Amino acid sequence: MGVHVAVLGATGAVGRTMVRVLEQRKFPVERLTLLATQRSAGEVIPFCGEGHTVRAFGSRAFAGVEIALFSAGGGPSEEIAPQAVKAGAVVIDNSSAFRMDPGVPLVVPEVNPHAAEHHRGIIANPNCSTIQMVVALKPLHDAARVKRVVVSTYQAVSGSGHKAVKELEQQTQQHVQGQRLSANVYPYPIAFNVLPHIGDFEPDGYSSEEWKMHHETRKIMEDDTLSVTATTVRVPVFIGHAEALNVETRSKLTPQRATVLLQDAPGVVVQDDVQNARYPLSSDCEGRDEVFVGRIREDFSQQNCLNLWVVSDNLRKGAALNAVQIAELLV
Amino acid sequence: MGVHVAVLGATGAVGRTMVRVLEQRKFPVERLTLLATQRSAGEVIPFCGEGHTVRAFGSRAFAGVEIALFSAGGGPSEEIAPQAVKAGAVVIDNSSAFRMDPGVPLVVPEVNPHAAEHHRGIIANPNCSTIQMVVALKPLHDAARVKRVVVSTYQAVSGSGHKAVKELEQQTQQHVQGQRLSANVYPYPIAFNVLPHIGDFEPDGYSSEEWKMHHETRKIMEDDTLSVTATTVRVPVFIGHAEALNVETRSKLTPQRATVLLQDAPGVVVQDDVQNARYPLSSDCEGRDEVFVGRIREDFSQQNCLNLWVVSDNLRKGAALNAVQIAELLV
Repeated sequence: MGVHVAVLGATGAVGRTMVRVLEQRKFPVERLTLLATQRSAGEVIPFCGEGHTVRAFGSRAFAGVEIALFSAGGGPSEEIAPQAVKAGAVVIDNSSAFRMDPGVPLVVPEVNPHAAEHHRGIIANPNCSTIQMVVALKPLHDAARVKRVVVSTYQAVSGSGHKAVKELEQQTQQHVQGQRLSANVYPYPIAFNVLPHIGDFEPDGYSSEEWKMHHETRKIMEDDTLSVTATTVRVPVFIGHAEALNVETRSKLTPQRATVLLQDAPGVVVQDDVQNARYPLSSDCEGRDEVFVGRIREDFSQQNCLNLWVVSDNLRKGAALNAVQIAELLV
Repeated sequence: MGVHVAVLGATGAVGRTMVRVLEQRKFPVERLTLLATQRSAGEVIPFCGEGHTVRAFGSRAFAGVEIALFSAGGGPSEEIAPQAVKAGAVVIDNSSAFRMDPGVPLVVPEVNPHAAEHHRGIIANPNCSTIQMVVALKPLHDAARVKRVVVSTYQAVSGSGHKAVKELEQQTQQHVQGQRLSANVYPYPIAFNVLPHIGDFEPDGYSSEEWKMHHETRKIMEDDTLSVTATTVRVPVFIGHAEALNVETRSKLTPQRATVLLQDAPGVVVQDDVQNARYPLSSDCEGRDEVFVGRIREDFSQQNCLNLWVVSDNLRKGAALNAVQIAELLV
């Protein structure tokens, strides 16, 4: 027997990828309900060879729905998730609305699958940049306890949705045509530029994205002694977040040992043969499910410390795939 | 009385900028000799309203030259610098050939101008990513002793010369025309991608660029207890290197105190008003002489630690300007 699955925000960059991932992973979908705002209703999205019409969200939208994948932003999630739960669905929410709620599990299936068991109707999907980082950190944490991570990110524009992808395309065209670049999604042009600004800034000078990497990592790894200090940066890449990690562990891990641990870890592919210019690349990860790790080096400036380079498809493992993997834990 | 200045590698990205900076800073040029390989000879480069013809380098090239600015790569520098010194010139060399030679000063005028006094004919210009970092670190080091830096870079293609700038332009055109991107300068396309690969890789997994940031910083700061661990990354930006620095000091510096120190430091401009989206940007720094610092934050994961975001024009402060500033110390 299959499952009645709903996708809220089905016309967005992540929502479309959710539908594609459900099909690719042969998730046992009995019935698929695609929901969006009034503005996007009527669009037809293909699933398993059939066109599915996106409906506007309404009061009876979740009747009979067993699993609802939400990717419609924090505001809609807060408002609509309780209605879906009331209607009997389990909500897997891609927004940040419930992630730090102590009553809501925050799950990366390779890291803390057991947490999904204790849900009360809502399971939160972590932030994209956090997910790929914790998948890479988990085997190192199990072997040597991660104490502190210094991370700088190189994040693709698709993390900001379709409109940002279009804006980078448009600015690229403007550049080729010798026109001035116009910026709407970000405060400055992103084409041929890097912006150290993701999310909103807190009074302490950190961005919300930077604090997410700290708090969500602690919750997923179930270790409040672990700290993450992040600088999150948008780069002119369409798909694929990259991260430079400096990882301090409580006990010593050689790069050789870390490599073996990462090679054996679920969801990780090690690409680390620098003499042959082999290292993870944003341009290689699109459409792939794994987290790619390379540039594994001992940090000679500090005891028990390694440098890593971590890349993954931010729309898949960073969002849609992880949500579908959580759904797989439920069925 | 003016100075007879030669520029070797005058047709390159840095060489052209050297000529422009000599003019803009009203360096007392009595005579200008522009030199390049046979292939580039004959090109005419403007200086102070006149066209100067680039000559092929030959055995009598440095007759009468007092200051020779070299930007022709490591091989030519090693071969030609001794000849220029023999002819009586002081060579300011932008390549890495002599930087770590104990008999050659490695100078950033804002940081260690005194070192220039002890030259024996050659003064080395540091690596672009090192220069902007040490300008930002110096006031913090003077106040609180920098102990360790974790740095991730976002480096512009112009650091690889004109050919890389052309390649990014070409790949951008190919993208707009729906063509496959062709890569020659780098092992993979740089457009819409990030490459954690600058320079050659050492057996320990670090790139030469990453080790330069460690060794050169120690030499310039004259402190062998200071360590730098770097991940150096090429991004699809034309001009302007950005760096995410995590700086651990021996004594405590608040972000407020660090901001005041940086505001008072020579060659530094603080741009740090995140609530109004004000932070250093590659797109703002082109043609500017200063090192821009922002995102100054306390790192809560470690005692005595700050995060900074540092941006500068890699062709100017990172290369040509710094070389001309060294020349200014000599006259």
